[in-house]
Amino acid sequence: MKGDTVISLACDIGGTNTRLGLVENDRLIGETLSSFANEAFGDFDALLDTYLASTAARSLTSVCIALAGVATPEGARLTNRDWTIRRADVARLTGASDVGFINDFEALGFALMRVDALETQPILVPGEPVSSSGTRMVLGAGTGFNAAACHPPRFGGEPHVAAAECGHMTLPLAGEQEFELQRKLSKGRGRASVERALSGNGLREIHQWVCERNGRDPAGRSAAEISRLAVSQADPDCIEAADMFLRLLGRVVGDLALAYLPTSGIYLSGGVSRALAPLMTSTPTFRQSFLAKGRMSSFMESFPVALLTDDRAALAGCVEWLLSSRYSR
Amino acid sequence: MKGDTVISLACDIGGTNTRLGLVENDRLIGETLSSFANEAFGDFDALLDTYLASTAARSLTSVCIALAGVATPEGARLTNRDWTIRRADVARLTGASDVGFINDFEALGFALMRVDALETQPILVPGEPVSSSGTRMVLGAGTGFNAAACHPPRFGGEPHVAAAECGHMTLPLAGEQEFELQRKLSKGRGRASVERALSGNGLREIHQWVCERNGRDPAGRSAAEISRLAVSQADPDCIEAADMFLRLLGRVVGDLALAYLPTSGIYLSGGVSRALAPLMTSTPTFRQSFLAKGRMSSFMESFPVALLTDDRAALAGCVEWLLSSRYSR
Repeated sequence: MKGDTVISLACDIGGTNTRLGLVENDRLIGETLSSFANEAFGDFDALLDTYLASTAARSLTSVCIALAGVATPEGARLTNRDWTIRRADVARLTGASDVGFINDFEALGFALMRVDALETQPILVPGEPVSSSGTRMVLGAGTGFNAAACHPPRFGGEPHVAAAECGHMTLPLAGEQEFELQRKLSKGRGRASVERALSGNGLREIHQWVCERNGRDPAGRSAAEISRLAVSQADPDCIEAADMFLRLLGRVVGDLALAYLPTSGIYLSGGVSRALAPLMTSTPTFRQSFLAKGRMSSFMESFPVALLTDDRAALAGCVEWLLSSRYSR
Repeated sequence: MKGDTVISLACDIGGTNTRLGLVENDRLIGETLSSFANEAFGDFDALLDTYLASTAARSLTSVCIALAGVATPEGARLTNRDWTIRRADVARLTGASDVGFINDFEALGFALMRVDALETQPILVPGEPVSSSGTRMVLGAGTGFNAAACHPPRFGGEPHVAAAECGHMTLPLAGEQEFELQRKLSKGRGRASVERALSGNGLREIHQWVCERNGRDPAGRSAAEISRLAVSQADPDCIEAADMFLRLLGRVVGDLALAYLPTSGIYLSGGVSRALAPLMTSTPTFRQSFLAKGRMSSFMESFPVALLTDDRAALAGCVEWLLSSRYSR
């Protein structure tokens, strides 16, 4: 690798790991891809320093950093880790004059510009052919919940990626059983947000609620355990909790489809979405809940839904951001 | 007016009236603005024919039609009137080669590109200065409910207007009193959508529910009557119904703000929003409900909220659409 020809750095700071890669000629350079455990570093600058020392990169012109947190032009603060990242520090360490921050779902939204290059698995497939030139949406449940939309240009030009804070929207509930769940989730808070239920912690709370109703001990199971025992049909409480999770997820995915009209596809991301994906096709709950929009239900059938399984999707989104940002100058 | 120099027609088909105007040099020509009662015509073609005969327009090049209904490139069907409008028929009647259909809220979204030219009234004003270059959102409750977002170009180019079908999203409810309302609104339907509550009919149903709870006769009051009696503080049931409506509206406006991040402004449209607007500032309900997003509540305070009072806003949106569409060629 010749350091002098490398122009950009793509960086995806996740809740646990940070992935980085250098970008040359609008592509990630395979041999420069690295992943570091965040807890091995006191702050992001130390991690970045270690990465840069491991590569021969000496002339970076631009950097795009995707992260789970609120991003501003001057920097960002991680939601689930006490790290503050400043544009000026990144510029100094990398020598880059352009440093951009986007949130993790915004990065996935940029990745949807070239979704054909990503690994995906179909979940709901419409009977009618689907246009590839419409809006796409990505959303997901993991540590938290969020979404982003990638709108095609209406009259020529670049696609528009719209960021969001959907995890903080009101959790939409209906019927006596869900009202009971809402009482539990909103206790001491006055309200329940979407990510109160649709996240790893949410799945644990739903499981605790199911166990209380069934007079059994929740045994402190993790979201990963609950998902695994539900998918393998090994535990009735886990099965019931996963079913309620998928009912709520299907409804929220349907609501956001009505907000963004993603006629060219809905992509599910995030650890919990991925862990429960087998149940989205083997049981009717997710599909039924997604379609249950009254007289709009046949309209709902026109949206394709797929699972985004590509671990490099956020990095790919950073590459698209770097491209769009460069072409605009 | 010289017919030969006129190039475009803007048309806004509402639930009751249709407004039309010719567009020359990127502006509506004041003397060509007309409004017709839909019920005076058997179909849209007859109305259009009457309008065109009243003007000297002979050489239209393009037409933009905004309407409450699902719009496709080939035409549209009104939601609340048995009218189907076909692109080919409009092209034949007007001689225009370009005929575009957009939904009424999409038109308002286009109008937000030049919101300074529209009549508005402030409702919630943030303490901090607000950027004028961010996303704007319009939404409203009238015959139905919907929203649209107007996103600024991220890297140069044209703004992007995103259409939606937000009236069909799940009505977000919380707490015992609202669960009781949900039971009434969802009776026989299995679910309650946003516009089941946030529309003229919704306000009537909320009023009926309040009267039942209070052991009084709802007296078949219309939404306009309920709004008037609530604003004038003349009737306790109407005051209570309006208060519940504003609580639900504030929550939904807050949820959609988290979905679209309209940092440069939220604009409320629609007959019911307008009728109840005085109560949005004279009582704390709307504001409190809008801000009630847990740890995001200080973030919510950064969004300005205003009432869109301009009756020509949808026509102004058609003019922006015609401009954007032309410049793209």
